[in-house]
Amino acid sequence: MDAAEALFPRKPGSVDRLAALAREDMAKVDVIIRARMQSPVSVIPSLADHIIEAGGKRLRPLLAVVAWRVAGARGDGGLKLAAAVEFIHTATLLHDDVVDSSRLRRGKLAAHLIWGAPSSVLVGDFLFARAFELMVETGSLRAMEILSRASRVIAEGEVLQLTRAHDLKLTQDTYLEIISAKTAELFAAAAEAGAVTAGASAAHCAALRAYGLNLGLAFQLADDALDYGGVTETLGKDAGDDFREGKATLPLLLAMARTGPREVEFWERAIGRKEQTELDFRKARDLIIAVGALDATLTLADEYADNAKAALSVFPMSDWRAGLESLADFAVSRRA
Amino acid sequence: MDAAEALFPRKPGSVDRLAALAREDMAKVDVIIRARMQSPVSVIPSLADHIIEAGGKRLRPLLAVVAWRVAGARGDGGLKLAAAVEFIHTATLLHDDVVDSSRLRRGKLAAHLIWGAPSSVLVGDFLFARAFELMVETGSLRAMEILSRASRVIAEGEVLQLTRAHDLKLTQDTYLEIISAKTAELFAAAAEAGAVTAGASAAHCAALRAYGLNLGLAFQLADDALDYGGVTETLGKDAGDDFREGKATLPLLLAMARTGPREVEFWERAIGRKEQTELDFRKARDLIIAVGALDATLTLADEYADNAKAALSVFPMSDWRAGLESLADFAVSRRA
Repeated sequence: MDAAEALFPRKPGSVDRLAALAREDMAKVDVIIRARMQSPVSVIPSLADHIIEAGGKRLRPLLAVVAWRVAGARGDGGLKLAAAVEFIHTATLLHDDVVDSSRLRRGKLAAHLIWGAPSSVLVGDFLFARAFELMVETGSLRAMEILSRASRVIAEGEVLQLTRAHDLKLTQDTYLEIISAKTAELFAAAAEAGAVTAGASAAHCAALRAYGLNLGLAFQLADDALDYGGVTETLGKDAGDDFREGKATLPLLLAMARTGPREVEFWERAIGRKEQTELDFRKARDLIIAVGALDATLTLADEYADNAKAALSVFPMSDWRAGLESLADFAVSRRA
Repeated sequence: MDAAEALFPRKPGSVDRLAALAREDMAKVDVIIRARMQSPVSVIPSLADHIIEAGGKRLRPLLAVVAWRVAGARGDGGLKLAAAVEFIHTATLLHDDVVDSSRLRRGKLAAHLIWGAPSSVLVGDFLFARAFELMVETGSLRAMEILSRASRVIAEGEVLQLTRAHDLKLTQDTYLEIISAKTAELFAAAAEAGAVTAGASAAHCAALRAYGLNLGLAFQLADDALDYGGVTETLGKDAGDDFREGKATLPLLLAMARTGPREVEFWERAIGRKEQTELDFRKARDLIIAVGALDATLTLADEYADNAKAALSVFPMSDWRAGLESLADFAVSRRA
């Protein structure tokens, strides 16, 4: 079974429903993003435009805006908050690509390969600071608390990943701790801060936070599965990147555990010492699929997607809630 | 005349007076710094401790605490703010050293040479986020506005320096714009935010901001002069670093303008193309001193130090004000 087949039986969710509901808001968020990435220092908007223009799905700001709407939006705080969330996300991408020496990002050459690592680091710092300037304008100390904490947790997750990523004995718990911090935390914080900015009740804020956290986990698990199942053209980054970097993601960890002593030498050479030949990625992928590690990863992703949907039960059914449910399905049914 | 002689006729200020007045406060700030650099991810406190333990003069947090006291301190907001300022400063040092590939920092091996550039980038991000967590606790949106703006301006200054640093035609104005952003802004913001946290009047906040800005400019100009006059042992970083990196600081810019066509080839080779021999630094230093470029740089530093002292005239004379005046003298009379 290849990854496409493993994904096939899943309910085909979509981000389109939410995107349509939030179209006007997101257009305004885009205007804020463009205005606030400007700087008299011309390298900054050029580099920022390169990565922001490439777009991605804008899931995190979308989540902030939707949570803000669901919780009864007021003023324009949710829009500025959403732009701030996208800036924080973009800053972490710029730094990550330097840290990982990645080649591609959002289907384009990574910024550090065009402008150099120093510019990527510093423009990341610029965007991070801009995010906090925007948040100050929302006037919500609580939203700032949530997002400054999230930024700190993300950095901790990145360092943890950096120091443990090549550890063949990484446990599933530590792996989940890493992706919870480096990915899910920002989804959780975006949704929670959106709700907070609208003045939602503590229960509604907590529900949206739980939705975001579980959605983020589902997304990252599906991402890690896609790295062994997708193709470079649709992924917008190199398929097999995680393997070539020797990153111990769940599909690999499960496969290493399940293939047992027979393949110990292969994993130690290819991941532990990163001595890889051209054919190793295909071999690893075949093993991962054969022992059911890809399927198990996607099944876990399904569970988190279900948890995300369940967290929404405190809200009455609405177009917004249906859109959020569809987004959770999308997290685990997408091909890229 | 060497740098020591150029500095000699200056009033020998000191940071000791302020440090003594703020001793108790700074001890508390230190406790906050140590507590908040902790993380379950052990690389983070190790790396942070390496650079924070080395100390430096803690001028920026000292400035925040003193401004807070001068403006009539209340609560403990000023102490948390001071710790946040030190975290922002430390984060920029970590990123700068990666950007500049510096070898030494505060007399110790630069962190990226021990833990690697990726860890330095990510721990910088951690400290930056921690700074904002601390600021949220002060409860002052205005202080957060000042420091998020300062963080953004610093990043702009760093990028401007990165893209223009080797430009032999850099004007004195652009040079001042760079050091104003990358150095003086945080001094200004620390002093202003300290005053804001104490609930000072707009006039007092503005005066302390002006003091900080001018003090920062005086410090950076003296620093740039010391790079051609100091010795590595007392500087805590390599003397001649700026020259070897081909950084167009004011002593160099003035010397290039004043030595005229006779030395054009030397500057273009050594700075423009960075083709340097062992003897070039000494030659450059001799030229810089001979044409009075070192003296002119220090004279400009004196002017800013005088501006800093003048900005304090809105405050009645006190031990604190006298301490701030002495710090301004220290900025331009120090040997390291």
